[in-house]
Amino acid sequence: MAILVFTLLKFSLTYFIFGPLDLYRKKASFNWKEMLLFIEGEDILAFKQHVFRTLENDPLFARQPGEDLSLEKMRELTFLRTKQLFRYNFLTQDDVMANPWKTVILNDCLGMYDWSLGAKYFLNKGMFGATVANSGSERHAEFVQNTEHMKTFGCFALTELSHGSNTRAMRTTATYDPSTQEFVINSPDFEAAKFWVGNLGKMATHAVVFAQLYTPDGVCHGLHSFVVQVRDPKTLLAMPGVMVGDMGKKLGQNGLDNGFALFHNVRIPRENMLNKTGDVAPDGRYVTPFKDPNKRFGASLGALSGGRVSISRMAVTNLKLAMTVAIRFSATRRQFGPKDTEEIPVLEYQLQQWRLIPYLAAVYALDHFSKSFFMNFVEFQIGQMMKDKSDRQAEFGREIHAISCSSKPLGSWTAQRGIQECREACGGHGYLAMNRLGDIRNDNDPNCTYEGDNNVLLQQTSNYLLSWVHAKHHDGAPIESPLETVNFLEDFNKILASKFTATTMEECMDSAVPLAAYKWLVCFLLDESQRRLGEQKASSKDDFEARNNSQVYYCRSLSIVYIEHIVLQRFHELTSSPDTPAGLRPVLRQLCSLYGLWSLSNHMATLYQGSYFSGRKPAEMIQTAILTLCSQLKDEAVALVDVFAPPDFILNSPIGKADGELYKNLWATVMQGSKVLERPSWWKEFCADKPVVGSLRAKL
Amino acid sequence: MAILVFTLLKFSLTYFIFGPLDLYRKKASFNWKEMLLFIEGEDILAFKQHVFRTLENDPLFARQPGEDLSLEKMRELTFLRTKQLFRYNFLTQDDVMANPWKTVILNDCLGMYDWSLGAKYFLNKGMFGATVANSGSERHAEFVQNTEHMKTFGCFALTELSHGSNTRAMRTTATYDPSTQEFVINSPDFEAAKFWVGNLGKMATHAVVFAQLYTPDGVCHGLHSFVVQVRDPKTLLAMPGVMVGDMGKKLGQNGLDNGFALFHNVRIPRENMLNKTGDVAPDGRYVTPFKDPNKRFGASLGALSGGRVSISRMAVTNLKLAMTVAIRFSATRRQFGPKDTEEIPVLEYQLQQWRLIPYLAAVYALDHFSKSFFMNFVEFQIGQMMKDKSDRQAEFGREIHAISCSSKPLGSWTAQRGIQECREACGGHGYLAMNRLGDIRNDNDPNCTYEGDNNVLLQQTSNYLLSWVHAKHHDGAPIESPLETVNFLEDFNKILASKFTATTMEECMDSAVPLAAYKWLVCFLLDESQRRLGEQKASSKDDFEARNNSQVYYCRSLSIVYIEHIVLQRFHELTSSPDTPAGLRPVLRQLCSLYGLWSLSNHMATLYQGSYFSGRKPAEMIQTAILTLCSQLKDEAVALVDVFAPPDFILNSPIGKADGELYKNLWATVMQGSKVLERPSWWKEFCADKPVVGSLRAKL
Repeated sequence: MAILVFTLLKFSLTYFIFGPLDLYRKKASFNWKEMLLFIEGEDILAFKQHVFRTLENDPLFARQPGEDLSLEKMRELTFLRTKQLFRYNFLTQDDVMANPWKTVILNDCLGMYDWSLGAKYFLNKGMFGATVANSGSERHAEFVQNTEHMKTFGCFALTELSHGSNTRAMRTTATYDPSTQEFVINSPDFEAAKFWVGNLGKMATHAVVFAQLYTPDGVCHGLHSFVVQVRDPKTLLAMPGVMVGDMGKKLGQNGLDNGFALFHNVRIPRENMLNKTGDVAPDGRYVTPFKDPNKRFGASLGALSGGRVSISRMAVTNLKLAMTVAIRFSATRRQFGPKDTEEIPVLEYQLQQWRLIPYLAAVYALDHFSKSFFMNFVEFQIGQMMKDKSDRQAEFGREIHAISCSSKPLGSWTAQRGIQECREACGGHGYLAMNRLGDIRNDNDPNCTYEGDNNVLLQQTSNYLLSWVHAKHHDGAPIESPLETVNFLEDFNKILASKFTATTMEECMDSAVPLAAYKWLVCFLLDESQRRLGEQKASSKDDFEARNNSQVYYCRSLSIVYIEHIVLQRFHELTSSPDTPAGLRPVLRQLCSLYGLWSLSNHMATLYQGSYFSGRKPAEMIQTAILTLCSQLKDEAVALVDVFAPPDFILNSPIGKADGELYKNLWATVMQGSKVLERPSWWKEFCADKPVVGSLRAKL
Repeated sequence: MAILVFTLLKFSLTYFIFGPLDLYRKKASFNWKEMLLFIEGEDILAFKQHVFRTLENDPLFARQPGEDLSLEKMRELTFLRTKQLFRYNFLTQDDVMANPWKTVILNDCLGMYDWSLGAKYFLNKGMFGATVANSGSERHAEFVQNTEHMKTFGCFALTELSHGSNTRAMRTTATYDPSTQEFVINSPDFEAAKFWVGNLGKMATHAVVFAQLYTPDGVCHGLHSFVVQVRDPKTLLAMPGVMVGDMGKKLGQNGLDNGFALFHNVRIPRENMLNKTGDVAPDGRYVTPFKDPNKRFGASLGALSGGRVSISRMAVTNLKLAMTVAIRFSATRRQFGPKDTEEIPVLEYQLQQWRLIPYLAAVYALDHFSKSFFMNFVEFQIGQMMKDKSDRQAEFGREIHAISCSSKPLGSWTAQRGIQECREACGGHGYLAMNRLGDIRNDNDPNCTYEGDNNVLLQQTSNYLLSWVHAKHHDGAPIESPLETVNFLEDFNKILASKFTATTMEECMDSAVPLAAYKWLVCFLLDESQRRLGEQKASSKDDFEARNNSQVYYCRSLSIVYIEHIVLQRFHELTSSPDTPAGLRPVLRQLCSLYGLWSLSNHMATLYQGSYFSGRKPAEMIQTAILTLCSQLKDEAVALVDVFAPPDFILNSPIGKADGELYKNLWATVMQGSKVLERPSWWKEFCADKPVVGSLRAKL
């Protein structure tokens, strides 16, 4: 294995040696191979290279940057490629058990190639297969097995046309008929059509359908999930009573067929109910291991909890792609210069550095966070599998929930803004589809929405934080969580009384400075949110209204500083850990400080407002520190991007290629386009049929 | 005419009366018809309705929301529709002379339908036709006439593959050959290919080509423009020596064919040189009315100056479309509620209001600004036509330039962010192509880049402001400009010494409060920028570097507050003008205050940094005022959007339709989609050819 890795690295290194990017590669203070091995590890690195190389060598995965494909063609290609993934079977069950992180890496690799492909593959395997396995019982094993060999294909149908965030309000019904021992699945009207279901548009044969369960006594037991066959696997034609179809074009991820389904009293066997959290006996009695229906509801939605963890990761992956394109472009695009004769790379401009390099720092910060948080999540899941009923495990679940509900917004928004900045920073060439920044942005965009709208999710996080303060006030319980993300709140008063003490710009360049400021911000905004809520309740607002009126500037900001603090804290620890190679620590420290200060600079008004800052100096020092760090890091930027950049074939962006031959690559791709030099098929419409100007002009 | 308008209004009003949006329409405090007439005037209103109705009644303009068209098809349709515009000839030369604003309105209308159409039409008429007319002389009249009847079709070729912002660095050459009295147009290599030229991809027959002019004595006279025939109008085949083609897919505006051209010693008659600012005599002598080559260069690029004025307007138009969709959606989409049984429109949530309503205020502020600024620009152009050589006219030109170089960034960025917020605020349905928010965002995006990258342009504005301070220091000249946008700088010291004085939230709700704060911000950042530049120069940086290192946090911020101040000032004047109907003033005042406070809230750190703010109160009062205004305006929002919303046919977004039947319209459009319920053409690939799992798995 070690030999293989070495060969791969050697290959890549050779690949990087020549060309216009050399200038910057040579300036880097660190060894990019060392960074790569430190971040990925040999095993993962070899796995990634294997996946990338396999796709590149298979003609089915060939493509042309910016090609113009119809929706039908995109979906066909994505399906054929998905089928090929079954043949490659990159990860067996055993591989995953040995190293669950590899699932994330495989998703990274597929996503870097095309998110539709990863989505199509994992929605069947994860959202359908794993949900059935986790929410069902032995009797559902066959459903899972059938998808594993693609005898059938699965999807996950929760949201409806008129309901997304408010999952409890779903209106599809499942009514038990004891006479035939069947459930009758029904959509009361089109507003209750299942909607947005990935894989359902063109090909899913089976769906996990969430519906309100009614027993023969007329009682509604709330939302439960059922396996419903929607198409015949032999023909892909709809099953009787199921109206299933395609939602049409989306802003991005168009290789994935999102769809809808309306059920007209569709009968399914009693056994198709996923019965882990509740079941209906043959005679129609409802049985559940849960006494509290709220708990049962939470558990039945538990299948969704992993989604946000993985979306935070997907967002960073998108930002990696965009940064690779924008940094390599900026290092090779020359425009203006000190003399009329000589132009300099746009990366030399302070403005370009300030626009891009903080996002490069964010990639490193969020990459580390997403990895460490995934490991936390795995630990939590092991606890669940071991049926750990301890208080700690319950607390762990609450904390994971609070983190994922804010890390998904932070990750997806940072990526969305960063990608847009990359698009603009590449000027017109960034607007050309072949350079891929548009697709990256469009494919990242839904990360802000699915698995919970970002703004709605943030409320979960602030609720969690407020509940700690409430518990403290109420029972004087110590504030202590399994991942220690709230422990510093024990020093609440002391932190609130603290002030910004740095006196020089150099001092600010230590990430301990923004870290301390973040602790103060969390305490301050927690205090303010609490006060605001109190005021709202005092003015006789009910709970619902009081909470709604405390979001903007209070609870929402609180959730954001909480997660930014965690991301910074973890990155800060990495940069100061003795396990981090000494040769990498300086550049990682710069990245960490930059990420911290740049994120913090969004909250300067609050820092002044609460008197943590006073006078002109603090803001000025932080701004100068940000600009200094950007300027120091511009010589590292190309090497920092080489660390996470996928091979050219995967990146699929002429201006982002590793050889840095910006114009040659761009021009070649333009020339390879379809009918690029041909006159249009409709040329006679111009040449032979001239309009008479004003012939259709109306008299007003 | 009056009768017609009345009928139209009646029609629209009837149209608006029924449906779920009534709830909000009835709550509005003002009469939306009165607002419409106040903002547009009868004549413009009738013109708009006429254009909209004409397009709607012509089957050539029929389309389906979210339809999936190939690039070739999009371009063909856009061309056919453009040809139809020649037949409709909505505006004659006389109409334009009588009311130049109508050109903008026509572009608004076409853009609301599809920006590619407007671009294709006006690039031929304006960028080619008007440039030839303005930069050429009598001998070029035929070129213009030929495009007017579509005998030929024109485009404007300035930028090259390797140069955009640095226009002076263009490398295409035009070498005069006295022996044949021709210019030889040549591209030294592919990096000098003309690139990004709208209309050139598929069909332009003639191009205005900018090239470095060489006379037989070997002297380079800098960039000049020439009419070059690139295709044969009889066949649309390329002319010998011209390699012309299509750049391929872009992020948006794909109905427009952007293209490239390489010239291999293409010979054109001497007369094809556009000779207003310089000419070559038959014997090869260079003659110019300008002594200073810099002035000549500026004048030859003068043709570009109108572009930015019109882009500021295009951006607001895009924001209008997106706001219409998002506000109507928010008023009809219900999710959660105080009780389990009853859900409330998402517009009732503070968070949704805060996300959207400030952008609604921005629409009104920027709409008014773009109109008044266009009138300024017309006045300036009249001066140019009258050959006004006065100092005032020269100052006027500098000021227009400074304003357009910052209003284009402000407008395009505000729209880009606002559209993204609308997309997210509509949740998943905002991600569905048929609802159009994706297209609106993608079509607005290039506004940030073309006619000058936003960040690069902002430097022009700060240079202008700094030059005033320099002149003041140097010769003690009074600071006074034709549009009075800098006059308050005369009180520089007094303003700098001023403080925020409001003591209640109610006081802050007067737009005079943010207006005063903006005056302080401009002075403060001007002072800071000046200081920063001085420091940079003192540390022996050359001018180029000193300027570059003073952009972030200084000059760039200065340009932004300068333009925000102007926009706010003009809106503030409108709301307090006696010409503004009394019934409209209250809501306009609220919009103005909200726009001012919300924009100001981006600069709170600076306000604290410079001690204009101190203590907790100012920020808190401003935040409370913003939330209060949002909540007051949420009942006006639907009516405010009705004022600028185009007819449903033009808006082309099911969730944005005027009847507010969100789900019915969405569902109907999904059902009207192509092959929506059909199985995919590639169904056998799933049903008959099953993969063997792991059959291609490699042994690592």
